[in-house]
Amino acid sequence: MTTPTTSTPGTLIEADPNIPTVRIVREFDAPVELVYRAHVEPDLVKQWMGPRSIDMDIEKWDMRTGGEYRYTALRDGEEVAHFYGSIHRVWENQKIVQTFGFEEMPEAVALETLELHDLGNGRTRLEILSVVESMEAQAGMMASGMEVGINEGYAALDTLLAGMVDG
Amino acid sequence: MTTPTTSTPGTLIEADPNIPTVRIVREFDAPVELVYRAHVEPDLVKQWMGPRSIDMDIEKWDMRTGGEYRYTALRDGEEVAHFYGSIHRVWENQKIVQTFGFEEMPEAVALETLELHDLGNGRTRLEILSVVESMEAQAGMMASGMEVGINEGYAALDTLLAGMVDG
Repeated sequence: MTTPTTSTPGTLIEADPNIPTVRIVREFDAPVELVYRAHVEPDLVKQWMGPRSIDMDIEKWDMRTGGEYRYTALRDGEEVAHFYGSIHRVWENQKIVQTFGFEEMPEAVALETLELHDLGNGRTRLEILSVVESMEAQAGMMASGMEVGINEGYAALDTLLAGMVDG
Repeated sequence: MTTPTTSTPGTLIEADPNIPTVRIVREFDAPVELVYRAHVEPDLVKQWMGPRSIDMDIEKWDMRTGGEYRYTALRDGEEVAHFYGSIHRVWENQKIVQTFGFEEMPEAVALETLELHDLGNGRTRLEILSVVESMEAQAGMMASGMEVGINEGYAALDTLLAGMVDG
């Protein structure tokens, strides 16, 4: 069995061939504390997350243990999707465990674990493990086109972080 | 490969042999609306959930989309475990998707989907699907002794529901 893998410069998106998990790995030229802030502060999140063509209208972004988030994705001012989830647990500057879903496919849900690893020299490796309930759900996730949002989003995050490091 | 299964009168606890999920199925002699209330109203939850030897001290039980829960398990007045989770989404009288964890093993997390099915004649089938991130985590869950709390808890829920149906 082959492992479906999308590897663009710097970003690994890998579906486990045996169990319904997907791993995303990306390194950033910024220290852990800044990469963490860019994930938990909504004013920063909206500057980079998702495809370039999408604007985020963030309704809630409460990244604490027991918190929640909710936002609308807009393309040219039109609502195209509504995302939401609950925050299982937060370890500051280290790890966030949360759920991920969207109104357009309410039965689909993923459990996501984001981890930040200090690579030294002001660099950080971000690892995300997404767990879904079936191999069919994993296949659907891999076929969703999510790599566009991931790759374009992380490219924008590179730029944002460069400004934060310099600032 | 065999499927580890614990089947006591009425309760099925079944680990999938191929992917890290565990399914629990139990039927109740009560309508869906009462089984649902017994899961979302903390004053009812504390009357049945968990092993007979355990009392629940519920700190938070906010069963809404984006909500959270947190409680301490006490045996003879001594704290033995601290459970918590976040609520991904609630469909009233139908379905709750939430996370499950405990302070004593903070790396462990399960994504739980509870569904209530109307069997007619005032009976309800409860199905819970728990998803974890690895087969090792699934094995740990099956070896945790959770069947004691499930079986004793659901026996207490039978009694509680009988009183609610009569009342």
